[in-house]
Amino acid sequence: MRLALVGFGVVAQAFTKIIAERRQEILKRHGLNPRIVAVIDQGGYTVNPKGLVLERLLQDKASKSTVTEEQFKNHDLQAKISLVKEIEADVVVETTPTNLKDGQPGLSYLEKALAGKKHVITTNKGPLALSLPALMELAEYNGVELRFSGTVGGGTPILEFGKRCLVSDKLLSATGILNGTTNFILTRMEKDGMIFDEALAKAQKLGYAEADPSLDIDGFDTACKTVIIANWLFNRRVTLRDIKITGIRNVDLKQVKDANTKGRAVKLLGIVDSALKVEPKEVSRDDPLCVEDTLNAVKFQTEYAGEEIIIGRGAGGMETASAVLRDLIAIRERMAEEIMA
Amino acid sequence: MRLALVGFGVVAQAFTKIIAERRQEILKRHGLNPRIVAVIDQGGYTVNPKGLVLERLLQDKASKSTVTEEQFKNHDLQAKISLVKEIEADVVVETTPTNLKDGQPGLSYLEKALAGKKHVITTNKGPLALSLPALMELAEYNGVELRFSGTVGGGTPILEFGKRCLVSDKLLSATGILNGTTNFILTRMEKDGMIFDEALAKAQKLGYAEADPSLDIDGFDTACKTVIIANWLFNRRVTLRDIKITGIRNVDLKQVKDANTKGRAVKLLGIVDSALKVEPKEVSRDDPLCVEDTLNAVKFQTEYAGEEIIIGRGAGGMETASAVLRDLIAIRERMAEEIMA
Repeated sequence: MRLALVGFGVVAQAFTKIIAERRQEILKRHGLNPRIVAVIDQGGYTVNPKGLVLERLLQDKASKSTVTEEQFKNHDLQAKISLVKEIEADVVVETTPTNLKDGQPGLSYLEKALAGKKHVITTNKGPLALSLPALMELAEYNGVELRFSGTVGGGTPILEFGKRCLVSDKLLSATGILNGTTNFILTRMEKDGMIFDEALAKAQKLGYAEADPSLDIDGFDTACKTVIIANWLFNRRVTLRDIKITGIRNVDLKQVKDANTKGRAVKLLGIVDSALKVEPKEVSRDDPLCVEDTLNAVKFQTEYAGEEIIIGRGAGGMETASAVLRDLIAIRERMAEEIMA
Repeated sequence: MRLALVGFGVVAQAFTKIIAERRQEILKRHGLNPRIVAVIDQGGYTVNPKGLVLERLLQDKASKSTVTEEQFKNHDLQAKISLVKEIEADVVVETTPTNLKDGQPGLSYLEKALAGKKHVITTNKGPLALSLPALMELAEYNGVELRFSGTVGGGTPILEFGKRCLVSDKLLSATGILNGTTNFILTRMEKDGMIFDEALAKAQKLGYAEADPSLDIDGFDTACKTVIIANWLFNRRVTLRDIKITGIRNVDLKQVKDANTKGRAVKLLGIVDSALKVEPKEVSRDDPLCVEDTLNAVKFQTEYAGEEIIIGRGAGGMETASAVLRDLIAIRERMAEEIMA
């Protein structure tokens, strides 16, 4: 299977490492022989229809900050986007950074890849949060798959669990702690009595929060994931514009302490039920949903099996890369079914 | 798809209700049209190649304690077992009670069904715990599926999660609270300061524990589930004879209280790592695995995504019936693939 990687940051490098290390096993277990035929990064691109040498890609990135050879240096975004449409590849793996303003450049890459009849795997929440219904339609129209396991829960297969494991049941609602940074901040306020600003500073010091932490603490990251869950698992055709968002910037220490004395904890929740919203709410300490620090958790309410909860790390390069591989295996299965049909 | 039900207790009746209520939806979503062509129960059997009337089955069971009509009353076990082999059905759903001594009569039903080239779904832990490696071989030899989602976690798709969701990762170990009754007893000892006998009596009063509670409190039920996890998810060819089992009969209140003062709780754990065992162990309250009352939880340690935990109700008729439906859908998918191949 021929892959084109768009973006070659932490996740794409980890993914490249996994397939380099586990090539034999992936072939044996899944009949899957992934060949990276193109990599586009900020410096330009590198292409080899026979397959690029993975170790070389990783070395070049480490030593030169780009995989691009001298003759392919090209900072023209339009040229790169055209390349994605025209290159002979089966799957495009898009891992460029999230942009919630207009979803670019990820959104253009995704659109061109799908229009070029390539299956797409993305870990980029921006384009999905802004345009998931349209992208799903575009994929369906072109008869290709659009997968994005890594956007919710990192390596923890929350979307997969909801889709494949709850297949015989009926999903009634989902409630999730979907952002590790805000969960860390709220946990430190509760456990260490830090005020919000101190806890945020600590999260930044530990590398959990960006210098501009708005994406996390104002609830946008949680909202993106909630929108993705609503589309993928509840067939709601919604975008970021349809969700009511309240972040944790105004959660004060008194509120956290008051909750604590009642055996409860304040958590930033993404909720899909009759409503669609993100807000800080009190959760009972006895509720298995009530996880601490950077953990993520989602509680699904189902008709027959009651409440089912899945918990895991919500982020991390290697974790998210394992989600990309999971998507690739799912696409491989779909392709095999089509060949047989 | 033609189904033969062997056993018509709580789970089989709940399953029958689900397909009666959701027939249209199951057909539309999964292309699956389940037709129950035979039911064997303690009174005898009832057969109709065109499909039995589901409402009638449920009414008969409620009013007469058997679905068997006068002319089919037959308490000869051998006759019933032969019927299972010879009947024209695609799938046998076996839900007779668990027997850990010799697995009977479930084991004979399963063997005959598989030898008769029928796919099998069972919720009966006895035959699996005693003979899972041999049964898996028998299924493979006859080119049919053997499924048993409902044996671990009731409706919570623990086996499915391990198999389908962790497909791109590597499973390193599993640790589970797999028995609701013992978890209820230990929780009441901890929270209410009950001694073991009081907590057991309360569990019995609430219907969580049998009159003979040995299966639960001596760890056998947990051991069965641990053996099933080891076979299904870790490719270990083991049976109940290969697992070291310690129950909770000797857990005293002091031990529970001592753990509590250290922020820990005593839980009966089934463990698959380099060893295979069941034993009461202390678990930190901060560990998401540490669920209370009758909840079940399993923690999977994976290579790339770290720890992933799944929590849910571990039992219940409707819950387990939803697992049977999940297995049926999986078998339907497998049959569809084979027709295409």
